[in-house]
Amino acid sequence: MTTTTRTTTDPLLAAVQQGVEVHDLGRPLSIGMPQSPNHPAYWHSLPRRHGDMVRGDGGSAANDFISMGTHVGTHIDALAHVSQDGLLHGGVDAAQAGVGGRYLEHGVHTIAPMVRRGVLLDVPATLDLADGCEAGYEITVADLEATVERQGTDVGAGDVVLIRSGWGRHFHDPDPSVYRGAASGVPGVSEAGAAWLAARDVHAVGADTIAFERLAPGAGHASLPAHRVLLVESGIYIVEALDLDGVAQAAVHEFTFVLSPLPLVGATGSPVRPLAVVSRG
Amino acid sequence: MTTTTRTTTDPLLAAVQQGVEVHDLGRPLSIGMPQSPNHPAYWHSLPRRHGDMVRGDGGSAANDFISMGTHVGTHIDALAHVSQDGLLHGGVDAAQAGVGGRYLEHGVHTIAPMVRRGVLLDVPATLDLADGCEAGYEITVADLEATVERQGTDVGAGDVVLIRSGWGRHFHDPDPSVYRGAASGVPGVSEAGAAWLAARDVHAVGADTIAFERLAPGAGHASLPAHRVLLVESGIYIVEALDLDGVAQAAVHEFTFVLSPLPLVGATGSPVRPLAVVSRG
Amino acid sequence: MTTTTRTTTDPLLAAVQQGVEVHDLGRPLSIGMPQSPNHPAYWHSLPRRHGDMVRGDGGSAANDFISMGTHVGTHIDALAHVSQDGLLHGGVDAAQAGVGGRYLEHGVHTIAPMVRRGVLLDVPATLDLADGCEAGYEITVADLEATVERQGTDVGAGDVVLIRSGWGRHFHDPDPSVYRGAASGVPGVSEAGAAWLAARDVHAVGADTIAFERLAPGAGHASLPAHRVLLVESGIYIVEALDLDGVAQAAVHEFTFVLSPLPLVGATGSPVRPLAVVSRG
Amino acid sequence: MTTTTRTTTDPLLAAVQQGVEVHDLGRPLSIGMPQSPNHPAYWHSLPRRHGDMVRGDGGSAANDFISMGTHVGTHIDALAHVSQDGLLHGGVDAAQAGVGGRYLEHGVHTIAPMVRRGVLLDVPATLDLADGCEAGYEITVADLEATVERQGTDVGAGDVVLIRSGWGRHFHDPDPSVYRGAASGVPGVSEAGAAWLAARDVHAVGADTIAFERLAPGAGHASLPAHRVLLVESGIYIVEALDLDGVAQAAVHEFTFVLSPLPLVGATGSPVRPLAVVSRG
Repeated sequence: MTTTTRTTTDPLLAAVQQGVEVHDLGRPLSIGMPQSPNHPAYWHSLPRRHGDMVRGDGGSAANDFISMGTHVGTHIDALAHVSQDGLLHGGVDAAQAGVGGRYLEHGVHTIAPMVRRGVLLDVPATLDLADGCEAGYEITVADLEATVERQGTDVGAGDVVLIRSGWGRHFHDPDPSVYRGAASGVPGVSEAGAAWLAARDVHAVGADTIAFERLAPGAGHASLPAHRVLLVESGIYIVEALDLDGVAQAAVHEFTFVLSPLPLVGATGSPVRPLAVVSRG
Repeated sequence: MTTTTRTTTDPLLAAVQQGVEVHDLGRPLSIGMPQSPNHPAYWHSLPRRHGDMVRGDGGSAANDFISMGTHVGTHIDALAHVSQDGLLHGGVDAAQAGVGGRYLEHGVHTIAPMVRRGVLLDVPATLDLADGCEAGYEITVADLEATVERQGTDVGAGDVVLIRSGWGRHFHDPDPSVYRGAASGVPGVSEAGAAWLAARDVHAVGADTIAFERLAPGAGHASLPAHRVLLVESGIYIVEALDLDGVAQAAVHEFTFVLSPLPLVGATGSPVRPLAVVSRG
Repeated sequence: MTTTTRTTTDPLLAAVQQGVEVHDLGRPLSIGMPQSPNHPAYWHSLPRRHGDMVRGDGGSAANDFISMGTHVGTHIDALAHVSQDGLLHGGVDAAQAGVGGRYLEHGVHTIAPMVRRGVLLDVPATLDLADGCEAGYEITVADLEATVERQGTDVGAGDVVLIRSGWGRHFHDPDPSVYRGAASGVPGVSEAGAAWLAARDVHAVGADTIAFERLAPGAGHASLPAHRVLLVESGIYIVEALDLDGVAQAAVHEFTFVLSPLPLVGATGSPVRPLAVVSRG
Repeated sequence: MTTTTRTTTDPLLAAVQQGVEVHDLGRPLSIGMPQSPNHPAYWHSLPRRHGDMVRGDGGSAANDFISMGTHVGTHIDALAHVSQDGLLHGGVDAAQAGVGGRYLEHGVHTIAPMVRRGVLLDVPATLDLADGCEAGYEITVADLEATVERQGTDVGAGDVVLIRSGWGRHFHDPDPSVYRGAASGVPGVSEAGAAWLAARDVHAVGADTIAFERLAPGAGHASLPAHRVLLVESGIYIVEALDLDGVAQAAVHEFTFVLSPLPLVGATGSPVRPLAVVSRG
């Protein structure tokens, strides 16, 4: 990535100009991609193709129509997404909050764009599992702490913590039900791991699975305690379906995490394409 | 924005941890927002609201359905968006490229996420126009050069150049046709300004209008020479409908520009929420 | 319309085979058609065009994506569409009825397809108005009764009554806001006319306007008493945006009315294309 | 269905007023319904629910957003749907016909609403198969002729012929892939049966399966000769995913067939809810 090497007094820009590596943590969006059936499927079409309308000067254009649920592909859950006993984070009445057809309180438009310290916890590397964690495996506090220890990356207040389970290897499986893992179960933290993250006052968390947290085989989304602990009780955002294999392979465990959600006013989530950025050697 | 002050050897992260100001350049997306009628309207609804389905443990969730054109709100044009005499950038046959219903060549999924030097050219400030440029005004090469001079911000290879016309003040007008400016015309560069940018080998350009370039009163999108010069001839991306008033007011003319388009495979554009990031004083 | 002239003992089929004239009462659906902005716009695109995918045997196909509100174009309002003081028709709690994201009670899927006597009340003909009723004109009970008298068409229990205002002439106006008539007002019955219809125990009513009932200039949909009287109080369906000019011109005032709503489970309405069918002379 | 018993000189209306039985041949549309994955999934949501907006007079409303492919649920294929060697019916160039993003020639908006003689060919009854034809079974000309013979229902020019395979019993299977039958195959006519229908100059045909014609196990839509024979070569419309079990059970083999497609301008198909109407005993 070429940038002009102009002198600047801005340390951030200076660092950028010295050279950075941008790791893309987002999954491509295309028809048939694996997603939860609870959400409208991603669809794309071209209402206009080149040649449909040609101007006098020979110019033409093509455009798109897309429709999708917001919790499809790599996406962020806003605090409006989950409620417990009728309440959102901060004791906000969930039913009232939705009157009018959108969540002005706690909607995804209230999530400030993030440029902050990010940490990847590569759990399979810790557990020495070349093929990633097993389906339905619960990533424990011990696993998280061992990973922090092994990597030498502390996790602290305001950080964004991305937990790699290795399940992302199934994203491109021709059978989308594999990545969804409803029958097999999916690895991830559960309540204890979520509490550990919350205790560290992190800003947001993420994982390389659709549901972020562990799904027991056959259980589906029947019980999602980590969502409750993080979104409702702690006000911590969750990013799902990340691609964490690139950063893991490059052993990039600490980085500048960049995430800029679409400000869909009143929505419960947004598709995102987060980045892990590091200075080049 | 609190980040943990841990010592790091990564200059980028170190700069982030010293403190950064993040300027949001994106417009909120909501029903009825001003947009070109050539594109599907933005629509949002909540298929599920809290209380629609309550789990045994008292948990509930809400989710969204969105549909929109990709050239709606703040968005980036991919090289697949515009053709001239049947060809996309690089001589790619536009009709052939679209066979199959998506542009694998030059689609928005081919735009690498950007973390690079950005420059704001605040033209109304140069022209001493508190209310911004007039409708239909052509921002000339002289205007651009005077702005570079006045601001002391060079424009060079690989940079992203954002041109403020001041027209963004109309974005929230209750009558969406005002910002669209079909009848009134809209200020912006035209062919000459586009050529000036292309000659500097910039990576991408943007503006605070829907069409980026000047629209003559009543002319609509009949002729878009800047799109041809930039997208087709030069392979330079265009970002439209930016919010440039915040950075202008803060006199932030040089910054780290961050843009991460949704990798919609084969699409001609993507909604985006770019950021202008600067180190804090 | 050619049909085989086979002898049948079924009187309905025999009548069909003798020859029928089918009057189409539906408006075509296309992008940009006039509709209420309260509802998602009609959009159509071709995800697949011929040639996108060609089978080994030389066959190819094209298909569509459509999205729209259900109260767009010629459509029927189900009883789930309108509530008064929190109640639907029959005292059904409106909020409760919608839990789950669809109205299983009173949704459009509960409207039985109609094949019944239909009556057109051509009010402009009665009032000798070649250009139709004026914007914002209230069609009175006296107008309705005079029309019944003039046409010799009684209105009775179980019938479907279509009221022509003449406003349909604006449907194809290049400016869609004309047919919408928010500023000008739109002609139609109001509370008294609705009560007159309800007293006759009709099955359904319809008109050649978007809102069926009279809209005062500038009032928009602030008050819709006819909807309350018909949908909520009487359980009478309303069909809107009909094309009644053909039947009026042909002086077809009494006919077999056919309407088959799409059984969209839990929806509040459905696009429809009703027919007025008469035996050929 | 009560209608007013007024004397009328219109034989059709007189027959209606004597009493008719309306058999609904359409399938309900709801999220998760079985459909071909080649088409955008049916989705429905309520942008507005009762209570979201309450008028001063205590009135409120709810409305819908729907999106879907047009070949979803019970639907009709227009002649624009299928091409052979680049040509639509009548030698129309398929690629040219789609320029502009819609098929003005042969689009579904060109299908006139139908009120004509309909014939149900209940093949499983002929073959004495209480559970319907087997997966992948080809309904032969012999089967069709034996059914005509057994039922005493001729098939002639201008008629609409509905072929029941019995596969419709799978429509409500909790596993939507069963009705789709990609792996198992699906019963139906093939080229010979299509030719037989075409030779009789029928107006339209239909079946109780998604693809109308026989699908061999595992073959999917690789080869669809009946579509070619009917749509391309003969200009005969195809209606798919009909519910034919009610009429079969009632032994209604000859009836007035009513079908009114939504006039979606330029679309390749439309969801429909056809009716089989007979005079009451």
